[in-house]
Order: sequence, then C-alpha cells, then structure tokens
Amino acid sequence: MNRILFEKDEIKADGTVTLGGVRALHILNVLGGEIGQPLKTGVVDGLAGTGVITSIDGETVTLKVSHTVETKAPWADLILAPPRPRVMKRLLPQLATLGVGKIVLVGAKKVEKDFWGATLLKEENFRPLLIDGLMQGGTTRIPELLTRRNLRKFVADELDAMFPTSYRLVAHPYAQEGAKDPGERKGRLLLAIGPEGGWTAEEIELLESKGFSRYSLGPRILRTDTATIGLLVKLNNEEK
Amino acid sequence: MNRILFEKDEIKADGTVTLGGVRALHILNVLGGEIGQPLKTGVVDGLAGTGVITSIDGETVTLKVSHTVETKAPWADLILAPPRPRVMKRLLPQLATLGVGKIVLVGAKKVEKDFWGATLLKEENFRPLLIDGLMQGGTTRIPELLTRRNLRKFVADELDAMFPTSYRLVAHPYAQEGAKDPGERKGRLLLAIGPEGGWTAEEIELLESKGFSRYSLGPRILRTDTATIGLLVKLNNEEK
Repeated sequence: MNRILFEKDEIKADGTVTLGGVRALHILNVLGGEIGQPLKTGVVDGLAGTGVITSIDGETVTLKVSHTVETKAPWADLILAPPRPRVMKRLLPQLATLGVGKIVLVGAKKVEKDFWGATLLKEENFRPLLIDGLMQGGTTRIPELLTRRNLRKFVADELDAMFPTSYRLVAHPYAQEGAKDPGERKGRLLLAIGPEGGWTAEEIELLESKGFSRYSLGPRILRTDTATIGLLVKLNNEEK
Repeated sequence: MNRILFEKDEIKADGTVTLGGVRALHILNVLGGEIGQPLKTGVVDGLAGTGVITSIDGETVTLKVSHTVETKAPWADLILAPPRPRVMKRLLPQLATLGVGKIVLVGAKKVEKDFWGATLLKEENFRPLLIDGLMQGGTTRIPELLTRRNLRKFVADELDAMFPTSYRLVAHPYAQEGAKDPGERKGRLLLAIGPEGGWTAEEIELLESKGFSRYSLGPRILRTDTATIGLLVKLNNEEK
C-alpha cells in the first residue's frame, strides 16, 4: 500500500478517520506507524493528501487527514473479452494501478458462458480488488467496470458515444497476420483485448470497421493478463 | 497450452509418447482431440514440431511426434530481488512465456529473509510453473533459475562473466529521481528489478558502477510482477 485510501463516508466531520482491519495492520506492521507520523492518504475517487497518526489503540489507528491534491486522470480504457474469473481477479487490481478508466467486459464468441454468473461481477467483490490496486499505485481514481454481453449491440449503439475521441487498437494472440502499423497516436487509448481463444474473424472485422487497428506483441502467445499489462505499460504515454 | 511439451525421456525410441494427467485432459477437453489430429508439440529445452494422435484410451492419449524445428532463443535475462513467494509463483510462468533466459534471484537488503526458505525454490516446484509458461507461449527454451543471496559478491565475482555483452537497465519504484535515458540498445537485455520496498541507494550505486542505467515506468508504483512483465513487453526487441 503506497497510499492508504478511505471511502468518503469513513472520514468524520472533524477530518479524522478511525481504522481497524487490514489498513490499520499495514500501518502498524509494515509502515511502523507511530503517533505524529504522516502517511500518504486519499479518498477513493477523490483527492489525495496526507494523514497524520493521532492515536493508536491496540490494532486501531486514528488519523487526521488533509486531502487537497487532484490525482492523475485515467489515460486509457479497455474493452475486454474476459478471461476466467481466476485470471480476471488477478488482473483487476493491476488495471487500477496502471490508471485505466473504463473497463467494458464484452461477450465475445469465445468467452466462456458461465463467466457471466461469476460472483466476481458483484460490486462488493470487485471493488475491494480495484481499491487494492489504487493503494498499490498511490492513486485514487477507481476504474468503472461495465458488462455488455452483446458485443455487436454495444459496438453499434454505445461505443462511439462512450469513447468519442479515442485512439483504438485491437490485440489478440494471432493479430500478427495482417497487423498494421497503428501510426501516430491521437486521443486517449482504447484497447480491445480478445478472449483466451482469440477474437473470431467477424469480431475483428466489426472492430476494424469502427477504426480499431490490429496490434500484435509478436509470435509468443501471451496469457490475457500478461498481454493486457504488457500492452498498457508499452502504450502508456503519460508524462514521467 | 498452445504447445504440448514433453520431457525428453517421455518420448520412446519409436517416437511415440503416451500421456495421462493434465496434458491429456487438455488435449481431450479443450483441443477436442481425435485420432489423426495433429497438435503443436515439443521437447522441454529442445526442438519443436508436431504430434499426431494415434490412440485414445479413456483419459490416456498416445501421440507420434516429429520434432525438427529450433525455437527462438531467449532474448533477455533478469536479476530479480524476489517478491513474496505468492507473487513469484504467479510471475515465473509469465517469464517463461516471455522468453527470458536466466533468472538470478538476488538477496537485496529489502528482500524478506524467509523468502530463501520458500519451497518454491526447489526445482521440483518451480520447474512445472516454467513449463506451464512455455506451453502457453508456444515455445520450448526453459529459463534457468539461480539464487545468489549475496548481491555484492555476485556483482563482483560473477556478473560480467555471466552476462558479458549485455545491455543493462535497473528499474525500481523510485527510479524517476535521477533516471537517465538509456540510449541506443546494444546486446541482450539484462534487467535488474528491485524488491517490493525498492533498492537501497548503495545497491543502485553498485549496479550503476557496473553499467546499469536507471529506468522508470513513471509515477505509478507497480507491483513487482506488474513492473517486470510491463518492462519485458516494453523492451522486447524480437522480430515480430
């Protein structure tokens, strides 16, 4: 945890927060928390700043916080044909760390049907994973997770309104056949990642018809999470 | 599994292999294996080629294999201050997929001491993870895993002999302070990745004295596995 985050309603009117649980244990055991010590803190989807430890009572820590700094805006969005829930669960915190804005989970043909019943899709289950990723990355902007099971309908009805000025790339394991040089980048990245078995030819055509350029990482076939993280790091154009 | 791999001694003198277990189940249930069907196969640390299914008996599959193709050589090596075993376990298959050659685990100051007792460090435990990664990537060259607990001694006595013509970069979460442009790349990549708490100033100096340039992925603080995968994908210069 490189920044301790709170939900807005955890902060009292006097600017103090009293914590138990994982965050308190992290402050005490990893950060060696002592009274008077300042820590990097922030509000989920809000401002960042500093919290000073004002009291420690067993495994409960109270901080007085001051949050005045805007954190970096997300710089990329994802259209993701979801991998197995086990892989997805590993991927979500890393997407939050990397500064992704929207994550649209779409029903490509080769997505396993039972994915859509996964308990991971409940906000109470995915939100803590995203917040873990924000605390790792030291940032506060939580990605928005949407599900659109009908890819064709999503692309026809919503894509352009949701991502009006995006720079669009589509990656999948076999993209090297016919991959184009995506050229100079304008706008915020919108990256489409195929399912573990790849996009179908029809799906690739559909995305190409909407301005997505094919993009390949070469002949080694990467797992969905490896490919997604690799592509996001490689294509990141935030200021260092 | 994008290529089914065998250990050399699994292949009989007549060129047949009889499989049970995970690989057989993958052939039957995921690849829809039928008699006469050709599959991508290979030998761990050896040649790649094709295996044709010659018989199926319950959950046992027999293939006749022909391996004549050299796979791509590794293109990068890692000096890694290991993260927790749980993270390391996730990372190892992905390093094999990405084409890493040597992985030298070093004892930086902030590596947790009890890491070195982890059962993961036994070959019988890490080798199957690496082979899983090779089968994912469709390749055969298995990374070599070495442990060197004394970083200073390793750097003084072995580094230059082990990696004579390497292009050397050192990454760690706070590298942006004083990061240099690494300039044009010559030779095979040697990437040094710090522990979760970062390298110490002395460790960074030691590596810089041996020609490592600092390299940063920006202000977001990445988990060791996210950073390692991201850097390898970003710095990969294999032909597409």
